[in-house]
Amino acid sequence: MCDTAGRLVNMLLSAAPNVDILLTLFVMMAAAKVLAEIFERLRQPAIVGEILAGVLIGPSVLNWVTPSEITNALAEVGVIFLLFTVGLETKPVNIFRVGKLAIIVAILGVAAPFVAGYFLLLAWGGTVVESLFIGTALVATSVGITARVLAGMGVLDARASRIILGAAVIDDILGLLILALVASAAAGRIDYLEIGLTASLAIAFTILVMLVGAPAITRLAPRIEALRISQSLFVFGLLLCLGLSVAATYIGVAAIIGAFLAGMALADATEGNETLRKQMNGVTEFLVPFFLVNIGMQLRLDVFREPAVIALVLMITLVAALTKLLGCGLGAISLGWRRAAQVGVGMIPRGEVGIVVAQIGLSLAVITDALFGVVLFMSVATTLIAPPFLKLLFASETAAQERGAAPH
Amino acid sequence: MCDTAGRLVNMLLSAAPNVDILLTLFVMMAAAKVLAEIFERLRQPAIVGEILAGVLIGPSVLNWVTPSEITNALAEVGVIFLLFTVGLETKPVNIFRVGKLAIIVAILGVAAPFVAGYFLLLAWGGTVVESLFIGTALVATSVGITARVLAGMGVLDARASRIILGAAVIDDILGLLILALVASAAAGRIDYLEIGLTASLAIAFTILVMLVGAPAITRLAPRIEALRISQSLFVFGLLLCLGLSVAATYIGVAAIIGAFLAGMALADATEGNETLRKQMNGVTEFLVPFFLVNIGMQLRLDVFREPAVIALVLMITLVAALTKLLGCGLGAISLGWRRAAQVGVGMIPRGEVGIVVAQIGLSLAVITDALFGVVLFMSVATTLIAPPFLKLLFASETAAQERGAAPH
Repeated sequence: MCDTAGRLVNMLLSAAPNVDILLTLFVMMAAAKVLAEIFERLRQPAIVGEILAGVLIGPSVLNWVTPSEITNALAEVGVIFLLFTVGLETKPVNIFRVGKLAIIVAILGVAAPFVAGYFLLLAWGGTVVESLFIGTALVATSVGITARVLAGMGVLDARASRIILGAAVIDDILGLLILALVASAAAGRIDYLEIGLTASLAIAFTILVMLVGAPAITRLAPRIEALRISQSLFVFGLLLCLGLSVAATYIGVAAIIGAFLAGMALADATEGNETLRKQMNGVTEFLVPFFLVNIGMQLRLDVFREPAVIALVLMITLVAALTKLLGCGLGAISLGWRRAAQVGVGMIPRGEVGIVVAQIGLSLAVITDALFGVVLFMSVATTLIAPPFLKLLFASETAAQERGAAPH
Repeated sequence: MCDTAGRLVNMLLSAAPNVDILLTLFVMMAAAKVLAEIFERLRQPAIVGEILAGVLIGPSVLNWVTPSEITNALAEVGVIFLLFTVGLETKPVNIFRVGKLAIIVAILGVAAPFVAGYFLLLAWGGTVVESLFIGTALVATSVGITARVLAGMGVLDARASRIILGAAVIDDILGLLILALVASAAAGRIDYLEIGLTASLAIAFTILVMLVGAPAITRLAPRIEALRISQSLFVFGLLLCLGLSVAATYIGVAAIIGAFLAGMALADATEGNETLRKQMNGVTEFLVPFFLVNIGMQLRLDVFREPAVIALVLMITLVAALTKLLGCGLGAISLGWRRAAQVGVGMIPRGEVGIVVAQIGLSLAVITDALFGVVLFMSVATTLIAPPFLKLLFASETAAQERGAAPH
């Protein structure tokens, strides 16, 4: 009897393999939200709980869920929509207004970790190529994590927040160029013309979407709303988000930058459209936990098995945090110590961007498996360090925000 | 120069394979919505356009996108949320009120296609096992398609709609039992005790969620809303939807039935909660196009290359449509001709359920590749036939609905 049942169940499962997917999604979402609730009760950021949920259920600890093509895809779509909804709350003019400062913050925040990472690995005994690659891996900023914390606190519009968002876009372009340089140096030949072309394209794309795209969409919006399909502006937003993400990757920038620009381009046209914002919020809230849990699942604790690597992983993580804090903080020092600290801490998380750089290094065979594990740990650890400090540093803005919202 | 660029692009793409995924999603969503708009302008149901978009971009015609593990996963999650949001609009009491009629509709709507399909294939020269399996494939109803059309017209609460929803749940349980019987007959041994146990479990699960789950959740809702995590009731809804879908498959019912029951269980607790409904609507509207396009992508036009199969595929499709129309219509004839026709047409689409049965048949090696293609065609064709007729048949309810909403 049990035999028949077993055969039937296996048959049904093998014909409908997506049952496993639903179970995976349920476990990821449930773990994320249980740990988020626990962390909220401990007065810690929910986001840290959600990433740690990934560490817990992932290969490092319980091994209930392993990163797969599907969890990676969901995570990718999740971070895209995260940046898209952040973009929806950001007007291009507010980013241009902090443009100069954002450029300085980005440049110092790229230079400091790159140089420090390079020399640290050289001193540890790495080759020149390995050291260049580790420097590159320390450059990447994962703005999604910071944006999520700031959005949750309602301080996305604070001056430091806008500098972080602007600097993150520039940071991504610079990071891409350094990656292209280092990767072609590793391959033996640097084509400056090609890299110059990529740089120009990336910058032109960003400025074009902000300057031309946003007003064009604002003019076009009534026509889109007049289409026959239901919820046409929401559908247009989804397509713009996916489309500019794809375009960004073809041009050479990260998909999240395209999604962020798509959100900004749509910000004016959808101002006050509560239904659209709630629908977009639903999509984002559904998808983001998979992004956060998937980051946590990447962590490999086996780097701690080799004593020689333990010192390195701790030092690289420390250097990764301090160089962004000091580099970006120095860039924003004209705004005073507190805001400089806000900007510096906001740029610390490396998250999925650091993980992607590590994967490129591994696939090019320029870093060893041990170094790959080191970069993964650094990426996850910097992502966990920043949110509690962000919460503290933005506490007075949150309080002001709440007083503003409820003035009695 | 181009060589370096090509290498770099390949490198970036291979390290970040999800770029392809974003492009796939963009193409699927864009094709679905362009065809939906065209169909709306031709006064045809948008849903037909979205399924035909899948036929167009899929392997049958342009071959831009092929069904993959990821598109299947998105489609599965999409249909789950579709049924979940339909459940949210459905109170258990309204289904119980039409319960007896729904049972008669389901039984006649299962018996007629099974018997007709069995004898049709026997007459065509099929083996007994093949004929049993084709009968089983004709039994499955894909309630998602009909529910989507009815929800779009705002007539989910019409009497015929409630009968369709109730009958679809019973239909799914009956279909599961027939599948278990046929599959174990094909394997050579039928364990009636085991099958009886599965049936009891499925029925107990359904009734338990409706009778006990719904009031329990309504009582629990204030506590859930009091949790610290943001949007806790929305998160709970997501978890309930995923969790009951998984539970349903473990018990042996389709995941969509679990999702529909989850929605119903939450209907009372979230009545009037516009924010939650808009968030859920956002998730559903984002995911459903992938479900519809994925159905269209399953179509294989190569069944039309073999002249001997052409007659069969057309006959089976015709029989599939007519037996549901007449069988279910007869079950609801006490409500008059028009309502009987509404119910009959509403049960015609086989959609993804027919496709899953075909896949099980193929994996058990009880049907040939040609018969597999026939069932796929029947599944997609019945799904395309029903919506235009539903639109016509429910026209007066829609008009009444619109008069009610705008009484001047």
